[in-house]
Amino acid sequence: MNLNFYLDKVEAEISNLGLPVKPERLYSPLNYFLNLGGKRLRPVLTLIATEFGGHSFQKSMDAALAIEFFHNFTLIHDDIMDEAPLRRGLPTVHEKWNQNVAILSGDVLLVKAYQLLSNQSKEHFSDLIWLFNKTAVEVCEGQQLDMDFESQDQVTIDEYIEMIRLKTSVLLGCALEFGFIVSNQNKENRDKIYSFGVNLGIAFQIQDDLLDLFGDPEKVGKQIGGDVKSNKKTLLYLLAEEKSKSNSTNELDSLKNMTDLDLRVQKTKELYLKIGVLEEAKKYQEKYYQKALETLNSIEISNSKNALMEVVEFLFNREH
Amino acid sequence: MNLNFYLDKVEAEISNLGLPVKPERLYSPLNYFLNLGGKRLRPVLTLIATEFGGHSFQKSMDAALAIEFFHNFTLIHDDIMDEAPLRRGLPTVHEKWNQNVAILSGDVLLVKAYQLLSNQSKEHFSDLIWLFNKTAVEVCEGQQLDMDFESQDQVTIDEYIEMIRLKTSVLLGCALEFGFIVSNQNKENRDKIYSFGVNLGIAFQIQDDLLDLFGDPEKVGKQIGGDVKSNKKTLLYLLAEEKSKSNSTNELDSLKNMTDLDLRVQKTKELYLKIGVLEEAKKYQEKYYQKALETLNSIEISNSKNALMEVVEFLFNREH
Repeated sequence: MNLNFYLDKVEAEISNLGLPVKPERLYSPLNYFLNLGGKRLRPVLTLIATEFGGHSFQKSMDAALAIEFFHNFTLIHDDIMDEAPLRRGLPTVHEKWNQNVAILSGDVLLVKAYQLLSNQSKEHFSDLIWLFNKTAVEVCEGQQLDMDFESQDQVTIDEYIEMIRLKTSVLLGCALEFGFIVSNQNKENRDKIYSFGVNLGIAFQIQDDLLDLFGDPEKVGKQIGGDVKSNKKTLLYLLAEEKSKSNSTNELDSLKNMTDLDLRVQKTKELYLKIGVLEEAKKYQEKYYQKALETLNSIEISNSKNALMEVVEFLFNREH
Repeated sequence: MNLNFYLDKVEAEISNLGLPVKPERLYSPLNYFLNLGGKRLRPVLTLIATEFGGHSFQKSMDAALAIEFFHNFTLIHDDIMDEAPLRRGLPTVHEKWNQNVAILSGDVLLVKAYQLLSNQSKEHFSDLIWLFNKTAVEVCEGQQLDMDFESQDQVTIDEYIEMIRLKTSVLLGCALEFGFIVSNQNKENRDKIYSFGVNLGIAFQIQDDLLDLFGDPEKVGKQIGGDVKSNKKTLLYLLAEEKSKSNSTNELDSLKNMTDLDLRVQKTKELYLKIGVLEEAKKYQEKYYQKALETLNSIEISNSKNALMEVVEFLFNREH
């Protein structure tokens, strides 16, 4: 089975959800948003982990969809908070309708996620919901930390990694562990697949930071240097800040105030290359990537890891 | 046991929740909002129903708190949507912090509600969460209908009753049924106590509409005529509209455009009294009130109904 097989299964389920029709302004935003596409990475991970654990992917379909619903709920609300006009090239919910519609349809989507999860068999339900609740709280905490960092003078590398762990990585761990819960894996294996997902997520998020500035615009599919233009505290920036301090240079500060944004991006790239920030960030990415693979390889299950490795390759094929 | 006994128990639990401290801007809004006070009507109903069902209230404390958390989540988000500056005389979360903080702390409060519910014993958990999910979806639907009505030309009485049933009454039914689930009552009794709660809620909401215009400002504790000033489609207004149509008068329309708001309130009161709208609205209230009591009385449990009757009297003692 390859990746597209699982992706198709998820897409088929999502297009056949049969959400209620009324109130129209509550449910049509959900139909709109859930069908904007996207990688469906998280539900696919749940299905693949279930089969890796030795059971049919169909057994965890509702848990997989619950994760996808939760993820979309966070996107709808994050888009409001970030005042983002577009998502996957199309208007966000608060842009297409209004903010109140986006708040409330996000809320009901979170409840619908729990409803889907409740469809799983009683046998697994308490484990699933315990992990889901813990993860959902952490994702909210990560989003708050991300917003806090904007106005915070000092952010350490450790704080940054912890923020991306909470905001994006734990959900990948949760998605994978869902598959292992449903396939009745023991606690040791469950912990390992969770840890694989979290480390994979951190490596992937760091890659995102790198590609934002050093990616090929055609491959990445968006403008280059968005993070630099908005002075976002990414790993690259935080590493550069650390180095600038010890070198007692203030090149970084003067770049932040440069009004020609394209020039700012150009000069930032040059600085990051010069002081070795790109190289160091790649080391961080490699560290989490290797940690993920080691943990995956330590799972003693005789079933094929091919599908999971295909996901890993898919996630890192842009540059890796 | 009287009402205050249960209220004190709920207050004690809420002041000892031990919510996390960090991120500070995620959790301090929750500590602030959960301690603004309020009637704690919903959790008290759960505890009383549990004892009425023959078990200790302590058995359902987490389910009761889950209901209170859910209720507060809806208030935090509704306050954003209504642009309300005050809640119980103090600044709302989006006013005291900002809108993003209010969205995200509301979100995490909803997750925390599920976390509390998950503490209940496995035996009852699937029944509790099924009802909770259903209720939460309905409350969102009710809120959307309420917003829709603002810009909708025609709203029927039936549509209005359905909106208040969803927006406020089903949560009372859910709170009560939680107590009966935890005390292992049969399906028939569970359905009855739920129905009692829903009808009680509708009667209470209608009373709210009446008191807004015809209440004693000192007893009601807020200004009189707020609904008239904002041209809200309350039961009184919808009844008046119905009557105005058959009488082919347009008195109601001219009142809506009256710029002197205090005069508008005065003239609206006079009109509603003249055309018998107050009387008719009271009949609606009485109908749901009686339906509630009949259902309560039909529950064949030998334990005392005194505590529940005390709640009913507390809810309607302002005018009834």
